[in-house]
Amino acid sequence: MADGFRIGVLGATGVVGREFLKILAERRFPVEALRLLATARSAGKRVEWGGKEWTVEETTRQSFRDLDFLFISASGDASREYAPVAAAEGVTVIDDSSAWRLEANVPLVVPEVNPEDLEGHQGIISTPNCSTVPLVMAVDAIRRVNPVKRIIADTYQSVSGTGTAAVEELRSQVARVMSNDHVEPHVYPHQIAFNLVPEIDRFLESGYTKEEWKMTMESRKILHDNELPLSATCVRVPVYVSHSEAIHLELEHPMDPGDAREVLAQTPGIRVMDDPTVSLYPTPWHAAGRDEVFVGRVRQDSSHPNGLAMWLVSDNLRKGAALNVVQVMEALVARDIVKA
Amino acid sequence: MADGFRIGVLGATGVVGREFLKILAERRFPVEALRLLATARSAGKRVEWGGKEWTVEETTRQSFRDLDFLFISASGDASREYAPVAAAEGVTVIDDSSAWRLEANVPLVVPEVNPEDLEGHQGIISTPNCSTVPLVMAVDAIRRVNPVKRIIADTYQSVSGTGTAAVEELRSQVARVMSNDHVEPHVYPHQIAFNLVPEIDRFLESGYTKEEWKMTMESRKILHDNELPLSATCVRVPVYVSHSEAIHLELEHPMDPGDAREVLAQTPGIRVMDDPTVSLYPTPWHAAGRDEVFVGRVRQDSSHPNGLAMWLVSDNLRKGAALNVVQVMEALVARDIVKA
Repeated sequence: MADGFRIGVLGATGVVGREFLKILAERRFPVEALRLLATARSAGKRVEWGGKEWTVEETTRQSFRDLDFLFISASGDASREYAPVAAAEGVTVIDDSSAWRLEANVPLVVPEVNPEDLEGHQGIISTPNCSTVPLVMAVDAIRRVNPVKRIIADTYQSVSGTGTAAVEELRSQVARVMSNDHVEPHVYPHQIAFNLVPEIDRFLESGYTKEEWKMTMESRKILHDNELPLSATCVRVPVYVSHSEAIHLELEHPMDPGDAREVLAQTPGIRVMDDPTVSLYPTPWHAAGRDEVFVGRVRQDSSHPNGLAMWLVSDNLRKGAALNVVQVMEALVARDIVKA
Repeated sequence: MADGFRIGVLGATGVVGREFLKILAERRFPVEALRLLATARSAGKRVEWGGKEWTVEETTRQSFRDLDFLFISASGDASREYAPVAAAEGVTVIDDSSAWRLEANVPLVVPEVNPEDLEGHQGIISTPNCSTVPLVMAVDAIRRVNPVKRIIADTYQSVSGTGTAAVEELRSQVARVMSNDHVEPHVYPHQIAFNLVPEIDRFLESGYTKEEWKMTMESRKILHDNELPLSATCVRVPVYVSHSEAIHLELEHPMDPGDAREVLAQTPGIRVMDDPTVSLYPTPWHAAGRDEVFVGRVRQDSSHPNGLAMWLVSDNLRKGAALNVVQVMEALVARDIVKA
C-alpha cells in the first residue's frame, strides 16, 4: 500500500482551492502527491504545502493521469469538459460546480446526511452549493424525529461565495464609499458595499434565481424527498465570509424548541449556540474559519402550530465547500470505495 | 385662521427628528412655529429651518403649551412621560416610540392603509415600527384582491434604525477592520462591520425579539386582523439606510405574479421595480432618500400553491418613520380633525 493518495486540484489558486489545501493539512489527510492545476494565467505560480513547494500547472486533458482524487473547483464549463476525462482514467472526481449536481448518476453528498449515496458512484461525485449544505444539515437533524413538510429559507450570503474578485470588490468599494468616491460595480450588478444584492446566479423564467432553485433541487436530492416544498430568497450581503440563513420549517407534529435544540446539538457537524439571555447566537464574523454549522434562535414559529424557526450560520468556504469535499474523500476511504 | 401649525419636535436632534424637519419643508407643510425639544445635553444647539434659526430647548412638562402638533421621536420612557402631558393640553401627539402602539385607544396608522383609524383619536396617535410600515403596505395592497392567510418576513435592517450612535459605530468599525485593528462593539452586542446581528430590541420569553413581535402585533392592529399568522426574523445588516425584507405570503387563492405586480403598481406609495432581465429590483443603497416602498422579485412562491414571494425595500427614516408621521399630520388636517 502506498503512503497516501495522489490528489489533483483543478482551481488550486481560487478561494475554495486554497481552503481545500489548508483543510487537507489540518485534517492530516494522507497525501502522497499533489497536482495543482489552474488556467494558463496562474500556471507557474508556486504554492507551499506540507513543507514542499508545488508549481501550479495549466490544466490539459492529460493532467489527470495517475491521480486517485481530482477536486474540481472551477466553472461549470471547465467541469463539464474535464470531469469525464478524469473519471474515464479511473480518477475519483469530486466537483464543486453546479454542472453535475442534479445528474441522476452523480451522487450529491453531505457526509453527515447521505453518505450511503457514495456507494456505486460512477467516477464523478458532486458537493452541494454553499447555501444548501447548512440547510440540509439542520433539516435532516430535525426530520429524523419529526418529518419536515415545507421549508422557507431566506439567505444572507457572503461575497467569498462568488470568489476572490468579489472579496476585492467589497473591500475596494467600502474604501471608496468611506472617502466619498463614486462606486462602479464590476463583479455584481449593483454596489455591494453598505448594500444588498438579491440576485445570486442568473434569473430563471419562474422569477427565482438559479441559486434559489439550486437550494430547492439539491435539498430534495440530498434528502431523498423529491417533492419537498421549499422556497428561498438568496441575498448577497456585505460580509466577507460565512453564509447565514433565516429558516422556517413546517413539521408533521408540533415541536418544542428545547427538544429541537437537543436533537440539533446531538448531530455531528452541528453546534448549537442559543442563549438569548446573553445575546448568544451565531454570526458570520465569528463562524468564519470554523468547521461547524452553527444554529441559534431556535423557536416555535408563531405563524404555524407545527412551525419551527431558526438561524443558521456556516463558513461557506469550509463546510459550504472545501471541508465537505475533504469529508467526502474521507468517507470514500473509510468505506473502502477509494483505496490508496 | 392662522398661517399654519405650531409644531413641537421632541427628539429634534436625533436621526428621525432631523429627517422629519427636512420632510416638513419638502412637502411644504404649513408651519407657523417650531419648538425643537431634546434632552439637556442638546439644549442650546441651533438648527436652521425655513430660513430661520431655531434653538433647541430642554424638554420639560411645560414645553407643550400652545402647540397644535407634537412629534415624539424619543425613548419609550420619555414618550410615556410626556405624551399624556401634551395630550392633556389639547396637543395632537404623534409618537414614533413603541410605548403607545398597541394601546387600545391609540390609533396606529399608515395613511395609505388605515387612515379611518385617525377618527376619534384621544390625543395620542402612534406611527408603526420601521419594519412594519413596508410590510403592511404590500400586504394591504395584495389582500384587497386576495386575502392574506399567513406571512413569513425575514428582514435586513440598516443601522440608522438604531440611531446616530449606530451609524457612527458601523463607520468606525469598518475603518478599524480595514486597517486590521481590533473591534470592540458598543451599541450592538456584536460587531456589525462585515457582520450580521440577528437581535433587534430585547429577547422575549418566546425566543422572538421584541422587534419581531412588534411586526406581528402592529401588522395585526393596522390590518384589523387580530389572528393574522406572522413570523419574522429581524436581522441587523451593515447598511446605513433602508430596511429590506424577504416576504412569503400565503393567500386564499393562487395569484399570478403579473397580477400581483399590477395591483402593487396601482397602490399609492408603492413603486414596483421588477425586471430580472436587466437586474432591476430595489436595493437599500438606491432606496435611501426616497419616499416609496419599493417592491421587486415578485414570484409565485414555489413552496405553496397559493404562495407569493417578494422583496421589499424602503428608507426606514422616511416611510419607515418621519415621512409616515408627516403623512399622518396631513391626513389629520385633510380630514379636519386638526385645524390651524
